[in-house]
Amino acid sequence: MKIKLLSSIAILAISLFSFRADNPIRIVFFGDSITQAGVGPTGYITKMSSIIEKEGLANKYELIGAGIGGNKVYDLYLRHEEDVIAKKPSIVIIYIGINDVWHKTTSRTGTDADKFERFYNALIKRLQNTGAQVVICTPTVIGEKNDNTNENDGDLNFFSGMIRKIAENNKVKLIDLRKSFMDYEVKNNIENKASGVLTTDRVHLNEAGNQFLAETMWATIKNL
Amino acid sequence: MKIKLLSSIAILAISLFSFRADNPIRIVFFGDSITQAGVGPTGYITKMSSIIEKEGLANKYELIGAGIGGNKVYDLYLRHEEDVIAKKPSIVIIYIGINDVWHKTTSRTGTDADKFERFYNALIKRLQNTGAQVVICTPTVIGEKNDNTNENDGDLNFFSGMIRKIAENNKVKLIDLRKSFMDYEVKNNIENKASGVLTTDRVHLNEAGNQFLAETMWATIKNL
Amino acid sequence: MKIKLLSSIAILAISLFSFRADNPIRIVFFGDSITQAGVGPTGYITKMSSIIEKEGLANKYELIGAGIGGNKVYDLYLRHEEDVIAKKPSIVIIYIGINDVWHKTTSRTGTDADKFERFYNALIKRLQNTGAQVVICTPTVIGEKNDNTNENDGDLNFFSGMIRKIAENNKVKLIDLRKSFMDYEVKNNIENKASGVLTTDRVHLNEAGNQFLAETMWATIKNL
Amino acid sequence: MKIKLLSSIAILAISLFSFRADNPIRIVFFGDSITQAGVGPTGYITKMSSIIEKEGLANKYELIGAGIGGNKVYDLYLRHEEDVIAKKPSIVIIYIGINDVWHKTTSRTGTDADKFERFYNALIKRLQNTGAQVVICTPTVIGEKNDNTNENDGDLNFFSGMIRKIAENNKVKLIDLRKSFMDYEVKNNIENKASGVLTTDRVHLNEAGNQFLAETMWATIKNL
Repeated sequence: MKIKLLSSIAILAISLFSFRADNPIRIVFFGDSITQAGVGPTGYITKMSSIIEKEGLANKYELIGAGIGGNKVYDLYLRHEEDVIAKKPSIVIIYIGINDVWHKTTSRTGTDADKFERFYNALIKRLQNTGAQVVICTPTVIGEKNDNTNENDGDLNFFSGMIRKIAENNKVKLIDLRKSFMDYEVKNNIENKASGVLTTDRVHLNEAGNQFLAETMWATIKNL
Repeated sequence: MKIKLLSSIAILAISLFSFRADNPIRIVFFGDSITQAGVGPTGYITKMSSIIEKEGLANKYELIGAGIGGNKVYDLYLRHEEDVIAKKPSIVIIYIGINDVWHKTTSRTGTDADKFERFYNALIKRLQNTGAQVVICTPTVIGEKNDNTNENDGDLNFFSGMIRKIAENNKVKLIDLRKSFMDYEVKNNIENKASGVLTTDRVHLNEAGNQFLAETMWATIKNL
Repeated sequence: MKIKLLSSIAILAISLFSFRADNPIRIVFFGDSITQAGVGPTGYITKMSSIIEKEGLANKYELIGAGIGGNKVYDLYLRHEEDVIAKKPSIVIIYIGINDVWHKTTSRTGTDADKFERFYNALIKRLQNTGAQVVICTPTVIGEKNDNTNENDGDLNFFSGMIRKIAENNKVKLIDLRKSFMDYEVKNNIENKASGVLTTDRVHLNEAGNQFLAETMWATIKNL
Repeated sequence: MKIKLLSSIAILAISLFSFRADNPIRIVFFGDSITQAGVGPTGYITKMSSIIEKEGLANKYELIGAGIGGNKVYDLYLRHEEDVIAKKPSIVIIYIGINDVWHKTTSRTGTDADKFERFYNALIKRLQNTGAQVVICTPTVIGEKNDNTNENDGDLNFFSGMIRKIAENNKVKLIDLRKSFMDYEVKNNIENKASGVLTTDRVHLNEAGNQFLAETMWATIKNL
């Protein structure tokens, strides 16, 4: 799950002209199945690599995927030492929350709001203690209908609100994926479909979804 | 649960001057706990009586409450003969759907969308077969927050959409309570509270809620 | 979904020797997906036909399947006139309850216990009013593990208890499928598997399950 | 929430005759609301103190409650450093699992079985790494009916089975509370009531429940 953007040519360039190259900005993407798929051929982390490469910044960044399917915020807490801290990232992008809401309706094993907040705060603190910059994201979608008629919309909007406050309270950067995705759906999901615009199955991203996610995240990451 | 608007004076007036009086328009309100409470001292049916009286139409209408707490659409179907048809109403106002959604999250005994539609259609047909005019309503609220962050909002919006289509398909009049209540919340629930504006507990109506409901329904009923 | 056991030969025999043949005992099996599949090539109603035929009683019984996938007790109530009474059965076997419990955990649309009882009583009354003999069954299994470790076991046992009381209160014959199936599992499900003994998927019956169900039901039916 | 059993007299005795007294066996009880209430006037930890005192062992043990209402296994993991390890116990009694099952049906925020196991294993490992002896318990009851008709019985039995295996796999001592409580119910809950025998509300223990729990745990603890 590791994508090194340093091609051999890039490495050469680095060894001649740059100190930076020896020390690229290492970013760990910490999340669930979407992030697990993010390092696949059409995944959002792979897409972001392409963007970075096109912008001529391949030698500046190293992107590492740390996503596991089904993860909720407390699962990230359980494995943050081994899967994130051990990799010594400069930046950690936390993108979690879909399963915390979704599993309420699939397996009755979602996450209580107060505990979501408690684990999220503890996780941020642990990561910040290593000196890493933490960036957190609101969850994307469980259903693409753009008029708040997806079953989990109420709860997903609520958890997104919590995450915005968690960002504020912890003074970490926020990438408001929920807002970006919903704006996109309002504009582009003309038939108000539940899936097929940015997702394959209401949750997991199709190629357009991965591309849009990569661009949306990158817009923030490149300015960190 | 029967409120007769015909005061003794009104009856006198009727016996002297009017044919109408002998045959007031009988309206049965068919629903759940909100309708059960609707005939209480501050309930919406009682409030509607007051409105009707003020408009000088007391001898024209007879309002009958037929609400039972916890009812879902199929419960209405089970008791429609005894509790509605037996009362020979001219008009039946069906106001149901909150428990069909809400019980999904309280007791895991909500109603499948396809069955909600099937029972609703069957119920309308049965009532129409008696010659009664049927009017149906979208559900009000489960949580008063005005930004689609109440847990059941997605589902409640979805069921409201279904009811709008049911009205259209069956060519019955619709009272879009969901829309009226949400518009009210956006305008008046400045602090975005979950309860306390129109409800006591996120669902059941306080006096302001009963008054608003009475006025909203009456605006349609008086023009039937 | 109708299986007539009267083969042309049987009909001949009847027309020559028997009054009975003109008036076989018509049994409607009223239920969910298991009963819907019951009239398939390996379904329990088909299996029961074979048993009946082997016992030389083919001209005495007519078996009719009236099962629809996903049905709960209130769905039976909705369609009992069209799908059962219209067929003028002498006997109605009601086999329902699995979805009333199971849907609590799959789609949060199970059935409240008090409503289960109310609809069941109303249904029995309606069918009895036609002169039909009603026989009711406890639900079989949601998971075949034999030590009460299937997730829905508690609720399924509770609903089975309710059905036993409903039988008693309405003085109708009971076929205690839950008990028969559990006894079978204790004896034969040595590895304590969740499926694969009498079911394919924890709920729907495999051929052995259909055979066992046919035999279990028949043991009661033949003595009615 | 700390109960020191060392009365002034006991301390005197110790200072004269015993090395042990300076270093009592410190036991932390790590759990949920039952353990939180365990240090109350009639709680099970308080009851156990009395037993210990009666057995003349007051100077040998120090009992510390570390229960928080609503806790599931992952909540214990989040706070195990601060609330258990920091207290340097010799023995840790983990009594958790009721909410992991129960919250599935109350708030749809129960715990996935595989994650329950993963967090439990991680927690045991962390505690064992400090040199503490870990003892784990199966959950008691959610409903006291003794015939597996409590709604959560299937799942509670399943989680109890998991905990028995976790004990085996981690070679830690098990206190099988589920079995002890169910045996008690079969024997003493003659009317098959849902609550009122060992609990006040199907889950939380009444005084008899606390006494029985104290005795049941102590039977194992005194032999550690």
